[in-house]
Order: sequence, then structure tokens, then C-alpha cells
Amino acid sequence: MTVNLEDIKQAAQRLIGVAIKTPILSSAILNERLNAKIFIKPECLQHIGAFKFRGAYNRLSQLNSEEKAKGVVAFSSGNHAQGIAYAARLLGMQSTIVMPSDAPTIKKEGTERLGANIRLYDRATESREQIAEEISSRSGAVLVPAFDDVDVIAGQGTCGLEIMQQLQALDCLPDAVLSPCGGGGLLAGVATAIKETNSSTKVYGVEPENYDDHRLSKSSGQRVKIDPPHKTSCDALMATQPGVITWSINSRLVDDFLVVTEDEVAHAISFAFRYLKLVVEPGGAVALAALLQNKLNINDACAAIILSGGNIDAQSFASCLQKFPSP
Amino acid sequence: MTVNLEDIKQAAQRLIGVAIKTPILSSAILNERLNAKIFIKPECLQHIGAFKFRGAYNRLSQLNSEEKAKGVVAFSSGNHAQGIAYAARLLGMQSTIVMPSDAPTIKKEGTERLGANIRLYDRATESREQIAEEISSRSGAVLVPAFDDVDVIAGQGTCGLEIMQQLQALDCLPDAVLSPCGGGGLLAGVATAIKETNSSTKVYGVEPENYDDHRLSKSSGQRVKIDPPHKTSCDALMATQPGVITWSINSRLVDDFLVVTEDEVAHAISFAFRYLKLVVEPGGAVALAALLQNKLNINDACAAIILSGGNIDAQSFASCLQKFPSP
Repeated sequence: MTVNLEDIKQAAQRLIGVAIKTPILSSAILNERLNAKIFIKPECLQHIGAFKFRGAYNRLSQLNSEEKAKGVVAFSSGNHAQGIAYAARLLGMQSTIVMPSDAPTIKKEGTERLGANIRLYDRATESREQIAEEISSRSGAVLVPAFDDVDVIAGQGTCGLEIMQQLQALDCLPDAVLSPCGGGGLLAGVATAIKETNSSTKVYGVEPENYDDHRLSKSSGQRVKIDPPHKTSCDALMATQPGVITWSINSRLVDDFLVVTEDEVAHAISFAFRYLKLVVEPGGAVALAALLQNKLNINDACAAIILSGGNIDAQSFASCLQKFPSP
Repeated sequence: MTVNLEDIKQAAQRLIGVAIKTPILSSAILNERLNAKIFIKPECLQHIGAFKFRGAYNRLSQLNSEEKAKGVVAFSSGNHAQGIAYAARLLGMQSTIVMPSDAPTIKKEGTERLGANIRLYDRATESREQIAEEISSRSGAVLVPAFDDVDVIAGQGTCGLEIMQQLQALDCLPDAVLSPCGGGGLLAGVATAIKETNSSTKVYGVEPENYDDHRLSKSSGQRVKIDPPHKTSCDALMATQPGVITWSINSRLVDDFLVVTEDEVAHAISFAFRYLKLVVEPGGAVALAALLQNKLNINDACAAIILSGGNIDAQSFASCLQKFPSP
């Protein structure tokens, strides 16, 4: 079970006219600050404000009509939820989302608005996997995992494919591509697209502190599960263990993993507000944070970063700006 | 003294590889809300966070080397200031900007960071025109007006040219294009580009309440000056009278003027944060506000709007989000 460039190209075909082909942006201020040529892939501008729609639609659009009639169930803190809900709506399917009761309000409301049924659960006392499986076995609805699924990974990979195509049109072959990393689905898809297009481009996954299960897995040579979970603003990157499929890809293709702190993330959000004029959520800002904090030497190099989502509550956003008024 | 499509095409040539070709964005949520096909031209993603760089560079890049050596002077509350400062820096010129002491901090700091000399003045007691003219006659620096200049207007028109080219690539001929309107420079350039490309596309200028000098000029058939100035969050749109050149164009080409209130602007800023994931300043949000408030019947139609800038202080931004938490 793996994903190759051909799978990603097929996913890209399915997404034509459905997903937004997000632009490649650049910022003279960012380039000066880093003394490098940085290209920004703003997936916050994707449908539902995050890349997750790509994988969800690629997965659901391949179901037959009988499967579609039974609906879909998923568990997610928010962006996968909204991706599934929107893809299901476009395909005329019912969707049920199992969400933690402490998910950001903007993500809960967004999911409801898209017509999904929401089943809230308590992170401390309930198992979302168990709830989702019960719903699935009762209704026959297909359960779509947030990252450990080849069609989901191939869908997310279209983001990486677009990066390479868009940079090629600008006569640029990137030295490095940095992607946020939670369960590793986006990273696995992007790494596949990048490495099979140009094997010498380095690919980095960026994790928030305390959720560096990929970094730990790489250094120990096996899938590490971190426990117990800590608090983090990066609700989109709270997976505690690399997926089986994603890790089989990422352990092979990802050159290294970088880790950023809560404050570094808040600083990057404020930088994106002030200089990029983009709204980026904590989990979406980790790759930008890694560059702004010089976690990688990219002097004189050309790099692309993915801003993977922008679903952040107004209050959390305002406190990042207040904490770092001159980012 | 006027501007035609050829001037704008020449400006576009000068801006290749210098200005950012901002993307055309769309939002399923906005389209559903308005039951229309809306294309967004986010000039907040332009260098210095506003379209003003286009006109400034088009003007300054045509100076000869003797003129360039004497530098440039301009007066502006902020975006023109930054546009001139950045264009001057790229062209190796000194710049002096006369700015009101109450200009948003983000615009003052942005102008300083770009290497301009700043001369603050008091709106109540000093004349910025007089100060700028004194500097110009003393130093020989060219004085570049914020809007009433054919090269500035042609530069801003490249935004409209891009809209038509980008929409053509999407097989769309817009029924309407809405642009913010302060002194009318962006509007005049955009209206020229739009109308000379497709005369049946309607062009609308959008003004903030109390600064509707264009609307009043249109209804009275002559350039109206409003006085005394009121407070407005739209610091970028505080011109009190249409320019001579801009009005000679806009009175001819603009189909109508729309007016939005302070609250409608704040609501649009919150909408752009939540659903478009873009940071838009008050003056940049008026066209979006006009559509969200149904000031124009665009049911089933296709329209493009310009979000002309994103230079807003964090505190003002946060209060818009707080005032309209569910835009």
C-alpha cells in the first residue's frame, strides 16, 4: 500500500474544476528577512480553509453509487471534518463527523454549516475511533481516516504536484519544500510528488513541540507513539503517532523533521498577518515558523513552504498579534 | 491628459518581474451567499500590501537618470507613501514622504522600513501640499501625486488589465467590476482597462460614508469637494474631491458609485478574515462590503471585486472581528 506520482496525477484530474488551484505567492519582505527565495503555497485559500478538501474529495469521488448512498463517517478536530463534509455535499452524500467537544468553534460551526451531522465526544473519556466504527457498522457508511489512506494521501499530494508545476512555470527548481506534519498525510503526498518529480529537492516535515512523533520515529527507526498528549495551539497537528502508510512513505522520502515552539508559531501567525496579509492557523504556520526561526539553513537557496490552513478563532488570532506586535 | 488601454499595456510591460501579478481568487461561501460568481483580486497581496506600488513604479521608472538622482517626494496617509518608497528603493532613488501624524502605525513603520525619509504633519494646522512643494522646489525632487497623474493612473490600471486577462483565461467575461474609490486613481485606471477591453462590463466605484465626493459629483455633474472631513476607518479613501484627471475619466467610464458605512466595512473585514483568509484594511474592503450588503443586484451574475489593500493595525483588525464575530 503506497502512493506514487501516477496516483497523484489521477487525483489531480479528479480535482480539476472542483478544488481550488491555490496560487504560489511570494513576499519581498520574507525573502529579505531570510536572504532566500521563498515561495508560499497558501492552502488556507483552499475550499474550507485547508488542504484537507483535496484528499477527502479524491477518496469520496471514487465510491460507487451504492456506497455513496450509505454516506460517510469521519473523526477529526476540524479540517478533515470540513473537508469530508464539503466533499460529501458536492457528491450528494450524507456525512457524520465525530468531533472533540473542545474543537475550535470556527471548525465546529464550519462543519455544521456544510450540512454534516456532528457527534461530539469527550477527549478524556470517549474513543472517537470506537464511536466512528459503531456509526459505520450500523449505517454502512464508509469511514474515511484523516491521513492513513492511500486515496487521501494521493489527494493531498496534488498540493505538492501543483507546487512543482507552478515553480517550473517560474523557471525554479526548489532546493527545499517544507510542509506541516500531523498524521503525515499531507507530507507523504507532497513528498511523493516532489521526490518523484525531482529527487534532489529536500523535503522537510515540521511539527509542533510535544507532538514531534515523526522526529522521534525517525531517530529511533520505528513508529513512536507519544503519550500523554500535551496542550498545543496546533489542533490540526495533534496526531500522536505516524500512520502506518504515511510512515512507510515519510520514513523513506522525508529528509528531516523540524520542531517549533508555541511562541514561534504565534510569531509566524503575526508575521503572516502583517506582511503576507494571510490568515493562517497555528498548525498551518509551522513551516513558516521554522524558516523565520532559522531552523534550516536556506541562505541563498530557493524553498517552498505550505501554509496548510487558516481556520483560527478570532480570539486566538488576536492574541497572537498582541503577543508579537512587531514580528 | 487622459489614459488609454495602450498606456496601461505599456505600464504592464514596465511592471513585469517587478510588481506581483496578484492571483484571482474565488470562494464557494461568498458565491453561495450572493448567488453569484465572484472573482476576487487581492491587491493586499501586492508589494507593500496595496495596489499603490503599481502606479508609483510606473511613474518613477520613466524618469531619466538626472531626475532620479534628485529623488522623489510624495504626501500620503500610507499606501501611496509605501508604494513610492519601495519603487524608489528599487530604482536607487531617495524618497521623502509627507505623512499625517495620525496615520496608522503599520503604515508609518512600513514606510520607514523601506528607507524613506518621513516628514510628519498635523492634519489640522499644516498643509501637506505646501510642505511637499517646498521640499520639491528646494531639492528638485519630483513630486508624485497619489492619484491625479496619468502615469500613476496607467500603473493602477494594470490591476484592471490583469483582471480581464485572468478572467478570460477562465472563460469569463464579467458583468460588473467593483473597485474602491478614494481620489479615483485606481478606479480610473481599472475603468479604462475594463471598458476598452469590453464596453458592456459595468464598472462601479465604492466609497465610504461621508467621503462620497464621487457619488455627489456624478449627481451634480461637476467635481464636488466635501468639507469638513469626518472621521473614517478608511484612511486610504479620505480624498475630499475627485482629481481633475481622474474625474475626467471616471465621469465618463464609471457606471455608478456605491456607498458603504463604517459598520459594513468592519463586517466585510471580519468576513474576509473568516471565509477568505485574507487580511484587508478598511479602505480595501469597501467593494466586498457593497456586495455583502446587497448594494448592487448581482443575482446570477459574474462580478470581480478589488480588495485594494491590507495595511491595518492589529488592534483595529481585532475590533472588527470582535464587533462582527459571525459575519
